[in-house]
Amino acid sequence: MIEYIPGLAKVPAAESAISFIDGDKGILEYRGIRIEELAAHSTFEEVSYLLLHGEHPTQEQLDSFTQRVREARVLSDEMRSMIQCFPKGAHPMASLQTCTSALGLLQGETVSDEGRRNEAAIQFIGVIPTLVAAAHRARLGEDIIEPDMSLDRSTDFLRMLTGETPDALSAKVMNVSLILHADHTMNASTFAARVTASTESEPAAAISAAVGSLSGPLHGGANERVLVMLEEIGSVSAVAPWFEAKLARKEKIMGLGHRVYKTKDPRAPILQGLVSELFEARGSSPLYDVAIELERCAEDKLGARGIYPNVDFYSGIVYNKLNIPTDIFTPIFAVSRISGWMAHWLEQMRDNRLFRPTQIYKGRREVSYVAIGDRTNGVTA
Amino acid sequence: MIEYIPGLAKVPAAESAISFIDGDKGILEYRGIRIEELAAHSTFEEVSYLLLHGEHPTQEQLDSFTQRVREARVLSDEMRSMIQCFPKGAHPMASLQTCTSALGLLQGETVSDEGRRNEAAIQFIGVIPTLVAAAHRARLGEDIIEPDMSLDRSTDFLRMLTGETPDALSAKVMNVSLILHADHTMNASTFAARVTASTESEPAAAISAAVGSLSGPLHGGANERVLVMLEEIGSVSAVAPWFEAKLARKEKIMGLGHRVYKTKDPRAPILQGLVSELFEARGSSPLYDVAIELERCAEDKLGARGIYPNVDFYSGIVYNKLNIPTDIFTPIFAVSRISGWMAHWLEQMRDNRLFRPTQIYKGRREVSYVAIGDRTNGVTA
Repeated sequence: MIEYIPGLAKVPAAESAISFIDGDKGILEYRGIRIEELAAHSTFEEVSYLLLHGEHPTQEQLDSFTQRVREARVLSDEMRSMIQCFPKGAHPMASLQTCTSALGLLQGETVSDEGRRNEAAIQFIGVIPTLVAAAHRARLGEDIIEPDMSLDRSTDFLRMLTGETPDALSAKVMNVSLILHADHTMNASTFAARVTASTESEPAAAISAAVGSLSGPLHGGANERVLVMLEEIGSVSAVAPWFEAKLARKEKIMGLGHRVYKTKDPRAPILQGLVSELFEARGSSPLYDVAIELERCAEDKLGARGIYPNVDFYSGIVYNKLNIPTDIFTPIFAVSRISGWMAHWLEQMRDNRLFRPTQIYKGRREVSYVAIGDRTNGVTA
Repeated sequence: MIEYIPGLAKVPAAESAISFIDGDKGILEYRGIRIEELAAHSTFEEVSYLLLHGEHPTQEQLDSFTQRVREARVLSDEMRSMIQCFPKGAHPMASLQTCTSALGLLQGETVSDEGRRNEAAIQFIGVIPTLVAAAHRARLGEDIIEPDMSLDRSTDFLRMLTGETPDALSAKVMNVSLILHADHTMNASTFAARVTASTESEPAAAISAAVGSLSGPLHGGANERVLVMLEEIGSVSAVAPWFEAKLARKEKIMGLGHRVYKTKDPRAPILQGLVSELFEARGSSPLYDVAIELERCAEDKLGARGIYPNVDFYSGIVYNKLNIPTDIFTPIFAVSRISGWMAHWLEQMRDNRLFRPTQIYKGRREVSYVAIGDRTNGVTA
């Protein structure tokens, strides 16, 4: 009899060679390469190739891969029509899960062949930004914007979402943010994808499960909540008393500290640098000033305990400055994490074992069936 | 460090009081009541109430519950339009996953309130038969048939699917089959639902994950494969030599034996009885004669080892005799299992803990980033 551990906390669910975290030292690596190096040098497509295939592409491999991921941005007519039918009030994550499920409607069998699996990975990585942007445009009653394959992922995503081609700095910030979120070991959505994939279902089924898992507030949405918090604080002078009161009540502060990092989240300073650059170029905002003051308070009072602003603290501020609506923040997470999910799917399929845990039965046994006329208050026995 | 067990085999993933299996004795209970008693006495709605609430309803509770589940059969206009847009060749399970995801498009927040969760359970249990039937009609280019709330679930499902109101025997057989499949402890789809739900995502996200998981051949589809096998055998005289050859090669025979039952699957004799009744009333078929002969061979040669025909052996034959297309067999599984999934969802939400296992890292560490021009054959370091 194996011990029951609620939530399978710390129970190894898979062997994996995709990403690595050293929470004590504040290290995140994709395929052994530090996130700092990838953020400094890579495109998102290069990182995607690395995650999927375990090694960096040569120039020729990268060009071919990038070309194919870009071509995969195009929506089928059926998908476009379906998105245009979505009700106006639909939540973007529900739309995205519906779209990812629908990717399975016409796809042939891909699971049994490695070449087809690699092709499916490209298709999914390519199309997610278009799905997010198209569903957002459709709910606003605006025309869906076709992809432009001459543009990189970040530039084209922002263009399809907002209708305006972003400047180079915005695209750079988005590119880095997508790189930083592309994988993070065995988180809840990745686990959901692997569990669903393990029945040898098609990738649409597994990715839809991942998107559904990400839509839950215990997984996605932290950066949305940081923004709400900053807005609630309201002004720079209010930060210190608000912060002290929170500490006194021992309440959780959104965007500070991280479950797996006992020191600084290595992604945070990277985004922090870009936030400074962005606000220097565009001018400050009350929200940003509040954030800077809260960051100062936090480093001052909590830094010694290893609690620092995490990546969610900065990503919400960045997306807000790029004029992205708050409820698109979690879909952007999917625009990035799709590469990690596909890498985990490929890894699961190369050495698959059906996830088939068991349960501890805690209910009644040997209850008699009582005829309905003889029951009282619905009690059976 | 907790031991790594591939597929989490025999690892307890939850405490549950919904269903119980004693595989050695061949016992299946829902909420403590034997499956034999439920199959003999209950409607599917009564079983659903039992699974959801842990006890049998009084007549008044059952009437109210049944009424509400029937009302939930009605499709929204948006859902009907969306289904009519599905491409003709779409697989019914991909359609069903898309539909279940789409149920989240307009649903408000349900997770935080028990009353809303119970209402959501009713909505999902009620609408799944309509979704399956509607998507099937749409792919044939036929009109979607509206539900008739004066009819019980099985009768109305068969009517919406085929366009003809089934006779009492067909409806009875379908009712029992739905009862037999309504829950089966911690199987792959139920686990996928609980994992996805544990982020506190909406039920549409969790049920969509369950449907996706069921769509994989390692989970759903066993009864489809039984039918294919019976067709391949082809004739009664071919059964014995085919069977002997399979045994000699130690090959798996579809529909015989069951992972969790070391004796007869308790659901099998129940369905076996109904199969006899159905074929007695309607006349035999070559397929049925092959099945009877295979059953005889199996009991003769494998019964002593505890290997008997399982529930999938009979359900495929039944559905085939009811003129249901083979690729609708797995969707019918969902028409039944939705009650178990919703019961597990309610149970998970009453005492939720995020599923957050870990991984064993098997990859490289501290790999240097090599400039793209310096790479050879895509090797990084």
